Amino acid sequence: MSHQKEVYFFSQGEAEGNASMKNTLGGKGANLAEMTSLGIPVPPGFTITTDVCSLFYKNGEKLPQELFGQVEEALARVEGKIGKKFGDAKNPLLVSVRSGGRASMPGMMDTILNLGLNDETVKGLADSSGNERFAWDSYRRFVQMYSNVVMGMNTSFLEMTLEDMKADRGFEKDTELTADDLKQLVERFKEQILDTTAKSFPMDPKEQLWGAIEAVFSSWNNDRAITYRRLHSIPDEWGTAVNVQSMVFGNLGEDSGTGVAFTRDPSTGDQRFFGEYLMNAQGEDVVAGIRTPQPITKEAAKGTGLPSLEEECPEAFKELVETYKKLENHYRDMQDIEFTIEKGQLWMLQTRTGKRTARAAVKIAMDMIDEGLINEQEAVLRVEPESLDQLLHPTLDPKSEKTLIAKGLPASPGGVFGKVVFDSDEAVDWKAKGEKVILVRVETSPEDIEGMVAAEGILTSRGGMTSHAAVVARGMGKCCVAGCGDVQVNEHAKEFRANGYVVKEGEIITLDGGSGEVFLGEVKTIPPQLDGAFHRLMKIADKSRKLKVRTNADTAPDAKTAIEFGAEGIGLCRTEHMFFAPERIDWVRRMILAENLEERQRALSELLPMQREDFVQIFKVMEDRPVTIRLLDPPLHEFLPHNDEEAKELAERLDVPFSELRTKVKVLHEFNPMLGHRGCRLAITYPEIYQMQARAIAEAAAEIVSGGQKLVPEIMIPLVGEAKELKILRKQVMETVEKVQKERSVSYEFMVGTMIELPRAAVTADQIAEYADFFSFGTNDLTQTTLGLSRDDAGRFLNTYVSKGIYGTDPFVSLDQSGVGKLVKMGVDLGRGSKTNLKIGICGEHGGDPASIEFFAQAGMDYVSCSPFRVPIARLAAAQAALKN
Amino acid sequence: MSHQKEVYFFSQGEAEGNASMKNTLGGKGANLAEMTSLGIPVPPGFTITTDVCSLFYKNGEKLPQELFGQVEEALARVEGKIGKKFGDAKNPLLVSVRSGGRASMPGMMDTILNLGLNDETVKGLADSSGNERFAWDSYRRFVQMYSNVVMGMNTSFLEMTLEDMKADRGFEKDTELTADDLKQLVERFKEQILDTTAKSFPMDPKEQLWGAIEAVFSSWNNDRAITYRRLHSIPDEWGTAVNVQSMVFGNLGEDSGTGVAFTRDPSTGDQRFFGEYLMNAQGEDVVAGIRTPQPITKEAAKGTGLPSLEEECPEAFKELVETYKKLENHYRDMQDIEFTIEKGQLWMLQTRTGKRTARAAVKIAMDMIDEGLINEQEAVLRVEPESLDQLLHPTLDPKSEKTLIAKGLPASPGGVFGKVVFDSDEAVDWKAKGEKVILVRVETSPEDIEGMVAAEGILTSRGGMTSHAAVVARGMGKCCVAGCGDVQVNEHAKEFRANGYVVKEGEIITLDGGSGEVFLGEVKTIPPQLDGAFHRLMKIADKSRKLKVRTNADTAPDAKTAIEFGAEGIGLCRTEHMFFAPERIDWVRRMILAENLEERQRALSELLPMQREDFVQIFKVMEDRPVTIRLLDPPLHEFLPHNDEEAKELAERLDVPFSELRTKVKVLHEFNPMLGHRGCRLAITYPEIYQMQARAIAEAAAEIVSGGQKLVPEIMIPLVGEAKELKILRKQVMETVEKVQKERSVSYEFMVGTMIELPRAAVTADQIAEYADFFSFGTNDLTQTTLGLSRDDAGRFLNTYVSKGIYGTDPFVSLDQSGVGKLVKMGVDLGRGSKTNLKIGICGEHGGDPASIEFFAQAGMDYVSCSPFRVPIARLAAAQAALKN
Repeated sequence: MSHQKEVYFFSQGEAEGNASMKNTLGGKGANLAEMTSLGIPVPPGFTITTDVCSLFYKNGEKLPQELFGQVEEALARVEGKIGKKFGDAKNPLLVSVRSGGRASMPGMMDTILNLGLNDETVKGLADSSGNERFAWDSYRRFVQMYSNVVMGMNTSFLEMTLEDMKADRGFEKDTELTADDLKQLVERFKEQILDTTAKSFPMDPKEQLWGAIEAVFSSWNNDRAITYRRLHSIPDEWGTAVNVQSMVFGNLGEDSGTGVAFTRDPSTGDQRFFGEYLMNAQGEDVVAGIRTPQPITKEAAKGTGLPSLEEECPEAFKELVETYKKLENHYRDMQDIEFTIEKGQLWMLQTRTGKRTARAAVKIAMDMIDEGLINEQEAVLRVEPESLDQLLHPTLDPKSEKTLIAKGLPASPGGVFGKVVFDSDEAVDWKAKGEKVILVRVETSPEDIEGMVAAEGILTSRGGMTSHAAVVARGMGKCCVAGCGDVQVNEHAKEFRANGYVVKEGEIITLDGGSGEVFLGEVKTIPPQLDGAFHRLMKIADKSRKLKVRTNADTAPDAKTAIEFGAEGIGLCRTEHMFFAPERIDWVRRMILAENLEERQRALSELLPMQREDFVQIFKVMEDRPVTIRLLDPPLHEFLPHNDEEAKELAERLDVPFSELRTKVKVLHEFNPMLGHRGCRLAITYPEIYQMQARAIAEAAAEIVSGGQKLVPEIMIPLVGEAKELKILRKQVMETVEKVQKERSVSYEFMVGTMIELPRAAVTADQIAEYADFFSFGTNDLTQTTLGLSRDDAGRFLNTYVSKGIYGTDPFVSLDQSGVGKLVKMGVDLGRGSKTNLKIGICGEHGGDPASIEFFAQAGMDYVSCSPFRVPIARLAAAQAALKN
Repeated sequence: MSHQKEVYFFSQGEAEGNASMKNTLGGKGANLAEMTSLGIPVPPGFTITTDVCSLFYKNGEKLPQELFGQVEEALARVEGKIGKKFGDAKNPLLVSVRSGGRASMPGMMDTILNLGLNDETVKGLADSSGNERFAWDSYRRFVQMYSNVVMGMNTSFLEMTLEDMKADRGFEKDTELTADDLKQLVERFKEQILDTTAKSFPMDPKEQLWGAIEAVFSSWNNDRAITYRRLHSIPDEWGTAVNVQSMVFGNLGEDSGTGVAFTRDPSTGDQRFFGEYLMNAQGEDVVAGIRTPQPITKEAAKGTGLPSLEEECPEAFKELVETYKKLENHYRDMQDIEFTIEKGQLWMLQTRTGKRTARAAVKIAMDMIDEGLINEQEAVLRVEPESLDQLLHPTLDPKSEKTLIAKGLPASPGGVFGKVVFDSDEAVDWKAKGEKVILVRVETSPEDIEGMVAAEGILTSRGGMTSHAAVVARGMGKCCVAGCGDVQVNEHAKEFRANGYVVKEGEIITLDGGSGEVFLGEVKTIPPQLDGAFHRLMKIADKSRKLKVRTNADTAPDAKTAIEFGAEGIGLCRTEHMFFAPERIDWVRRMILAENLEERQRALSELLPMQREDFVQIFKVMEDRPVTIRLLDPPLHEFLPHNDEEAKELAERLDVPFSELRTKVKVLHEFNPMLGHRGCRLAITYPEIYQMQARAIAEAAAEIVSGGQKLVPEIMIPLVGEAKELKILRKQVMETVEKVQKERSVSYEFMVGTMIELPRAAVTADQIAEYADFFSFGTNDLTQTTLGLSRDDAGRFLNTYVSKGIYGTDPFVSLDQSGVGKLVKMGVDLGRGSKTNLKIGICGEHGGDPASIEFFAQAGMDYVSCSPFRVPIARLAAAQAALKN
């Protein structure tokens, strides 16, 4: 029986693996092999593959039999290279054992250094290094790490013993402990370990090694690692590799040291070598923060009063600079590296693609084109589309002090502060007085629009990522923290409570829409940064893109913003928001309360010129770009007063009996408004509503076209579930538009299409396509109906669902591809099967989500439509989707 | 260019068509041809095919050119047979022109008799018949019919002229008018027609004929016909045929007559010839009700004081009896026939399958097996499953006088009367005092269960065919009229208003659950009739059936009823109804209001023994039949008080602060409870709820199995949308059951399955099947989510949707096969694809609907489950589904 290769050796120009083998060797192992092959000095060692991790879990956490021989063999090769023997009392080989998965999971899994030390080999190390204290300190560290990671000791016990000894001796720092102190400490540690775990600390280096390997594999499933994977969408099946590598020591004296560095500035993207180091230290000391790390370059050290590596260790520095340049050129990306200098000799311990801010990512990608390192397509793929959001909104200054009082959903990004108000009218009033306000509500409704416009940001205690507040705020590019369950709003008392804090009207809070955090008082913000590199990236991205990017915009100003961000049309212009303006809402209500067709038409005729003017303004801004206008969608009761007080006021204003009005409101109440009398169902029962809207669009278009502007209005009918609905309504709309064209003696093309937002529409899309010039997938509602999940109510359990891994992500944020996506695909295929040239887009919130955009591109859509502030993200994501496939 | 045959001739043993050609010749034409071939005397004539009707509409209501020749040729053949010529002044051939579609549409389309008469031929008719008055009366009738049907005259004008003349002459009956009177009348008619239509009445018989043929085709699309087709699901494309047939006259004197008859009693199914006739009359006179028709047989005439045909015309009677027997034997079904006797000679004008009551249908089918006319399979196909409903419930006596005050949806059949109460507690109290009550509510909720049990029937003003009231009432076999928008309930005033009537508490009303009608006062009822024939039919049906039939039952008594109706198991036992019992609901509420796990478990442990006892009782009744128990499904707020008053009472009872309780109720409120925190989502967040229920089932099963009864409990998890939900909950349930088995040292098999009731579940059924032992399609909720249609809210527009033909039928009554059905099929196929032996059933309301049952059978399901009173219907429908495919 032939076995798979499970162990990959590397040493000085002789590596069995390479950088392309990340899936098998993990990121760290693959890059160690690659660096070795490049001739970069890497301590010899070997990598145990991720496949072994899978086998380990398949076998009930047991290592496969064949691994033992392969490890023994590799270990022997390391001994040969180094000239030391593992477990040798005179000249012992020591190794580190580290995890390393396909994706970086910093600090999530376990590492053991100095492995191979025992009561014998420690003496050999003391002799061979000529540094007894160093040897015993290494042993002390090893016992602490190993007993914790492998034997499950609580580290704080040993830490206390160490602190006790320092106190006994009157020492402040670990470094003051002498070799003898450390010897005693190791003895005490071993006793404590035996007491606590009922096991002796293993003296056999092989037993130590196998214990460490198993422990690293086991750490793949520790709680931290599981949580990290969930948060970063890393599959559980990937597993980790294990790297066993001969130790080099940065703590062998003043000619030794260790450090980490970035090949460019990870914050700005500037082309300067950037890092920190400590002399006479082991890796953990740099990050532990006990000593202040020093800057690597002389330039960076300027004014700090600290020496730099460039000065302290010029030879090693020179080699490090050569190495980083070699690595960046080789990997053609900014690298994050770790190194150790042992007695003046540089060793590289790690290189990987460096994490960076959005700003740096854009700058580096653009610079590298100019440097000839990458081409334009590669540059486009280098920037995470979602990260652009950081560039488009002000953000909180990370250096500010903050008092966190609550955390909700990061519904719409940005960092803002203002005085708390609990009412939309107040928000408008305060704003008029020059105040910055934060509108705090249980949940917003369309009546809050004016208040939302007036506010700097919105905080709600209910509702999810696609609640009314969240959707509208994103549309406005306004900061919003939604569904903040910590916050209990008391509108009457004009205050809210959150985790023991009480915040009253007029007090200042700060929202971080990017994290969902709410802070007490004012936190400083940093303005958005759209530099030349950003615009250049967008331009390059557009070259690769096949999917068009439109925007969801209901007003001319929103449309203008979107165009500035590169929107190529409007994919969703909702007409109902236009109905909530103060001078209109009462006419809308008269229309709803009408007892007969005549009264209803009278009210509609009042609304007609207002709607027409809305469309004229939008058409003007959009110039010759396409505009899709959705006819009235929400249930009528949304426009009516929600309590008796408002109803009384309205009854007086409209001069109708209050009891009659209240009855009407009651009659229109629905148990499940989401599944109720809305969308095209309104027009089936009250055809005159859509007729008015179609006329308003047609008249506006006539005016625009008469003025010489080109225009093909796209009229969209929502909530169609059955082809016959569209057949009837299409005919009505077409008749109305044609009548207007005749009246005005003007002719222009127009389209009538539909939303696909019900499962039934998706599975009967072939029939629906017969009456549609275009489809626009409404994936918000399609998600609600397909999953049977109300976005307004899901907040109560959605977090549990995501944290238990039932949903990978919030399905309202990123499309549920295997469920809703299956229906979308079916809808596209059936629609095009029946009408080849059918124009297909998507206008749900998913239109601005990069993962969803890739799916839509693959499904063969013509365009996505998203809120104005997500247009750049969508453009980049669409470009990446095209380049990936 | 060869033309299709568009005209089929028939005369005395020489017919070009036959009974199998109904699609082409219509029912009437096909049967005229068939009778002719059988040697039965049929007046010669010809049939113009339904294809011509299609061509007629395709050509913009113009007849195809080639028809003219074919009609001329057929007409000539008729002339040859009869020895009269069309339009001949001496011996004119007269014809009738009648419609006749594939499906019978009685009275919906137009008929013209005596065609061919004009000022000349009328004299010939007078001469050849020797009866001048007869000739002019025929002419008068023809002018009236023709001017109405072909020329669009309003008949009432001519009718008034006729009445005026009678008044002038002092006559009472039409028959008193003399030949001269009739001559004058025809003249006046012709003048009036010219005045009104600006057209002369056509004198050319050919022009008359073509006008009549066109008019009959046009009548296919008159409003009555369109409405009728919609109500009876007859496709618009079918079209009608036109029958042109030589006239025979029942009004040629006392040796002539006309009649209609059924070959068996259409009401009871008894084997007796049953019909009515009039001597010296034309067809229309029998139905017009001017003269009282006479019974055909001597026996039927006994005691009526009327002569019978058997006595008046023994020769013709004998021939009629021979003919009806021949026809029944030939068609092997009860026939509905029309005949005319002309001067002692019998002519058959029509035969068709006779309409009958459910009782008669069952009796006839069983009798015909014994008579050797049909076999058992044919007998099973002879009875409309839906019609059995009539047999299972008391019905209103059709002979009673009634005052209709409102009409709602026929939600659950039966005819009941009782005193009106507006409150469930009142219903219980009044019932205890021995009163019969009707519970009248806006809509019922689970808290009304006791009141519904106490009431004779339920009337609601809101909610559709699958509203709470409707579903629960059907489950109980209790009469219910739901969604009766005419009724405005005022609970405070204890009265309701409907179309001007005011009905107060204690006043009697009667409900007809089969028609949805509400009557004032008491209407007599007829008890249900389950005779030997019914039971025999069920037994025979069961032989052919492949689909199992289970029932939806939540209590032991319901289960018992269902078993008596032949249920083979329980397909849906809802556990939430059990929670509403008065001694339990407060424990349920304590569970919901619990602040922590401990409190919640305390409340659940109180509920455990109660639930266990429920299951013990049900298992006992069901014996070894399978029982599927669905774990808790509704959102928790359904169990909480719905207003402040109730909340206050509860707060006192539970000794919690009212404000706290009210806050909890508010927090649990949902915008769209249908899409909210319910079903398995409750168990994902509160695992202890399902754990209690699983334990109650397991303990009950342990008790039953220990007693020696066989049992395989089926535990069903609702509202699964993602396989991982089921994976988690299945594991929990299995662990609980296995733990109980260990505790009780008893072992039995059990199954864990799921509802497929969300579109996402249907499209990912392959993944879900991995964790399911069975699927049960919940087509109620699947319809709601697939169509985006709340059954509680749809009432407002569903009628409009059905009347505009957007939906063929209410999708909550009969499965939407092309939409929801597509997902069902997908779910079945994906589920079986992943697990071949997956048991699949359906437990939505559609499980009792014959059309849906046929679909489920074809989809490959193992069983349907329906409310107890629909079990016989389902058994018959399932048998028919098997026989048809």
